[in-house]
Amino acid sequence: MKKHLTDTDINNLERFPKVNLMNSATGYKSANLIGTKNPKGVTNLAVFNSVCHLGSSPALIHFTLRPHTVARHTYENILETKYFTINQINTSIVGQAHYTAASFNANVSEFEATGLVEEYKNDFYAPYVQQSAIQIGCEYVNTYEIKENGCLLVIGAIKHLYFEDHIQAKDGFLNLEDGQTVCINGLDQYAVPKPLARFEYARPNEDIKEKTI
Amino acid sequence: MKKHLTDTDINNLERFPKVNLMNSATGYKSANLIGTKNPKGVTNLAVFNSVCHLGSSPALIHFTLRPHTVARHTYENILETKYFTINQINTSIVGQAHYTAASFNANVSEFEATGLVEEYKNDFYAPYVQQSAIQIGCEYVNTYEIKENGCLLVIGAIKHLYFEDHIQAKDGFLNLEDGQTVCINGLDQYAVPKPLARFEYARPNEDIKEKTI
Repeated sequence: MKKHLTDTDINNLERFPKVNLMNSATGYKSANLIGTKNPKGVTNLAVFNSVCHLGSSPALIHFTLRPHTVARHTYENILETKYFTINQINTSIVGQAHYTAASFNANVSEFEATGLVEEYKNDFYAPYVQQSAIQIGCEYVNTYEIKENGCLLVIGAIKHLYFEDHIQAKDGFLNLEDGQTVCINGLDQYAVPKPLARFEYARPNEDIKEKTI
Repeated sequence: MKKHLTDTDINNLERFPKVNLMNSATGYKSANLIGTKNPKGVTNLAVFNSVCHLGSSPALIHFTLRPHTVARHTYENILETKYFTINQINTSIVGQAHYTAASFNANVSEFEATGLVEEYKNDFYAPYVQQSAIQIGCEYVNTYEIKENGCLLVIGAIKHLYFEDHIQAKDGFLNLEDGQTVCINGLDQYAVPKPLARFEYARPNEDIKEKTI
């Protein structure tokens, strides 16, 4: 038997039950740290669960920002410097990753506060997270304001991609399990996905086949 | 040692290795079936890995559509009828869910082709997937065209939410593990997340604590 809530029921929930419920209702999300550095040289690191692939040619990603959240430093740094990194969160750094969400003073780097290590390479301005097995260096492209609630959709272009060699399958795919990548449910649960199956391209009147790569 | 690809390297990859790589690079994604019905009564069902929470007050979600994909039926139906459902994919229906991606004739319902069962309730126009433990009934709100590559960001308002009672924790959170919800890596891998930890709200100078609910 399923519980049923209408939009009015949801709207009448108290703040935290509502936020917890709404953030779980659409399923698991990607777990990434976005790294930036402001023009004074102070670095910033924040967890995002909304980073998504947007296109492959050219390689674009997007993520959303809520108005009035701790994420503002990230966005201000991106607008001012044009560069940011995306770093997949793995099982060995989940606690540190979550700790970046604390409201640190603006002069404190979340790298320093959490022990996550800044990594710089190929003259890229923004810091990568050294402990991350999959890292992306992005250039800022555009922002779309979602007028319905003031959220921002930020578009980035992938300029650099780094990943541990052994993670990649022959067909280009990254076995995220081998990078110990986690995913996020709601605002505060981290989970470790175990692969169930890869499927071949689906065709009418043919049974679904598992891919063996 | 990490492999390094620049934007030029990525651009020069062949189509499928590029698409496989780009779709894994940002991490695991939500796994949902979007259900619609056209004005003639033909139902449609398609897998989406881009459904994301956009806000709680009001409760909004978004997802992206690529230009020229099988997803066009979904979008046309949404524009014409204003309603759609989001249904979390679970371990028992992953094969059927993936099979909805086959290019069926426009008069064939993916429900019929896959054996997933249409469910109608509370006078909502669009069909839910009966086998799904977490179902959302959405009203179409708006589309933002991403001018960089022609993708569309579709916004929906949550009008109805259904979930199996036993899934919900005391603080509103849905234990997706108890709904056997899966996540997606790339275009074709389905994985089952095992919870690692829920963390308390992070505060400077306080150790990160696990939540016990």
